[in-house]
Amino acid sequence: MILTIVQARELVEASMVAVGHTQKEAEIIGDHLIDCELRGLSFGGLPRALSVIERIQATTTPRHAIQVIKETPVSVALDGGDQVGYLIGRMATDMAIDKARKTGLAVVSANQTWYTGMFSYYLEEITKAGFAGMIAGSGGRRVAPHGGTEGRFSTNPIAFGFPSTSTPVIWDIGTSAVMLGEVVLAQRLGQLLPEGVAFDPQGNPTRDPSAALEGAFGVWGGHKGSGLAMVVQLLGMMGGASGAPRKTHDCGFFMLVINPELLSSAEDYKKRVKEFADSMRTTRPLDPARPVRVPFERSAADREKRRLEDRIEVADEVYEALVHIATPVGIAK
Amino acid sequence: MILTIVQARELVEASMVAVGHTQKEAEIIGDHLIDCELRGLSFGGLPRALSVIERIQATTTPRHAIQVIKETPVSVALDGGDQVGYLIGRMATDMAIDKARKTGLAVVSANQTWYTGMFSYYLEEITKAGFAGMIAGSGGRRVAPHGGTEGRFSTNPIAFGFPSTSTPVIWDIGTSAVMLGEVVLAQRLGQLLPEGVAFDPQGNPTRDPSAALEGAFGVWGGHKGSGLAMVVQLLGMMGGASGAPRKTHDCGFFMLVINPELLSSAEDYKKRVKEFADSMRTTRPLDPARPVRVPFERSAADREKRRLEDRIEVADEVYEALVHIATPVGIAK
Repeated sequence: MILTIVQARELVEASMVAVGHTQKEAEIIGDHLIDCELRGLSFGGLPRALSVIERIQATTTPRHAIQVIKETPVSVALDGGDQVGYLIGRMATDMAIDKARKTGLAVVSANQTWYTGMFSYYLEEITKAGFAGMIAGSGGRRVAPHGGTEGRFSTNPIAFGFPSTSTPVIWDIGTSAVMLGEVVLAQRLGQLLPEGVAFDPQGNPTRDPSAALEGAFGVWGGHKGSGLAMVVQLLGMMGGASGAPRKTHDCGFFMLVINPELLSSAEDYKKRVKEFADSMRTTRPLDPARPVRVPFERSAADREKRRLEDRIEVADEVYEALVHIATPVGIAK
Repeated sequence: MILTIVQARELVEASMVAVGHTQKEAEIIGDHLIDCELRGLSFGGLPRALSVIERIQATTTPRHAIQVIKETPVSVALDGGDQVGYLIGRMATDMAIDKARKTGLAVVSANQTWYTGMFSYYLEEITKAGFAGMIAGSGGRRVAPHGGTEGRFSTNPIAFGFPSTSTPVIWDIGTSAVMLGEVVLAQRLGQLLPEGVAFDPQGNPTRDPSAALEGAFGVWGGHKGSGLAMVVQLLGMMGGASGAPRKTHDCGFFMLVINPELLSSAEDYKKRVKEFADSMRTTRPLDPARPVRVPFERSAADREKRRLEDRIEVADEVYEALVHIATPVGIAK
């Protein structure tokens, strides 16, 4: 199914309203999911809307409003109330930017949330405000530490963003050897995983995605990468999230925002970030056909292209399922 | 040559006084270098004292006192005055802890410095104070980004530390495929580097350490690791350090300290960090003979062992050279 951006957005919003969100909340979620689609991360786009809806429909305990648990001039700790993370991320970003405007430095945490999406989405806002930022997200036991065969980390994303006079520089990675979305997709399509990225529940290496989902994924980057995954888990726990929550429950969220003006000149820093990105891009390449890339640039360029094309492709099954959910609130099939 | 800890410390201190440091500065440097020896990182110990002395003797422009350039209740920006980084790191740590005691959150940067040592040394102080921390350090062009063959980053260490009711959890890595100390050692011993970790000045892969020192080292961790190295460079630049300084000049230093009490209960967090470290250590291992390791624990245990042995082994050439420098200020050979 091919949709325009407006059609895709309306479909997501209506489906989110149908499962109990306000129109404003639905718009926040929709904006994030459409941004994933436009940036080429379609597993985090319309198909993710379905996963969000399934998680809400499968949860019997009611969610409550996001609450501020602790607050200082440089910090906010949020209880996410079991709300979807896109809402927490949006609120955290706004609060962190607001505090950083006053003090130059802010940290915001959340627990009791799930699916916080692309951290680069929030870092783009932070860098637009002229600030640098770091975000880390922890969760349930799905990824084995280096040398182990049982889950201790979640897929634990970590991201940093830096403001520039041109495209911001945003680095956003997961610390597992394979992404959850890839494993779920392989399971749906009946495909095998690559060698060496997962363990079955008995701790044997496996290429079977179902066994990997019951067992554990490998960690990215060997011993060093395993340490980074641990760092993300400990950052996520700082806001009160469990170190070993049930999957897709009580994820931890940690956001730091800093105004470079605290340490030097913010305007000069933005110029120097751009110059540094330029110097990376023009590094003598190993293969002349493959210039060195600067993180975020390609997906930002893809987004511009897709915006002009005004065309979002979605699997028919996903479209039908979303229309089915959204119909009661007014999307005509 | 075998020295007691006291003898090694006195030798380092006297040699540091001999090149113009005060006794107090010499003690700060000595404490850091002896800690490297005790933790088994001997290339950062007594041999590093010689590198520090060579750098000072080769520099014609005078260094000046470390200066505070900017300061707020949550931040300090230091001009390192071309002083060795051990002094800057010590001052930054004290200032960051002092500010974090008042506001809960602090960032300290420095430029115009070099050789900041093991970041875990500072993070141990930070975690002793009950705080978590992050440190990043940038420098001259020595490491090629992924897909490139020219230096754009330094070996760019990054480290995080977390307080615990037991041993703190400290992750401290370099982002290059090979350490500077390893390459210099291979050059001295006439050995080849491993495959795939360096480029010569023309951009060809090389195993020759001299060619690697003239050319560039590879980056650790492929595309993702290259992004992390870039993050460290951009963090280091925030305090005013150049993105492309001359080697061993104008390195950038970035330190963040956070009191977990801002976001949850600091006492409870320390317990949960310990529990998480325990859960990592008891992960079902891939090889029963090799349990999963928690960063920092082994080197902290090694240090205790070496303290009891009271025995530091140093190459005769290094010992002779340090005694030669130190003799005028009163170390008897």
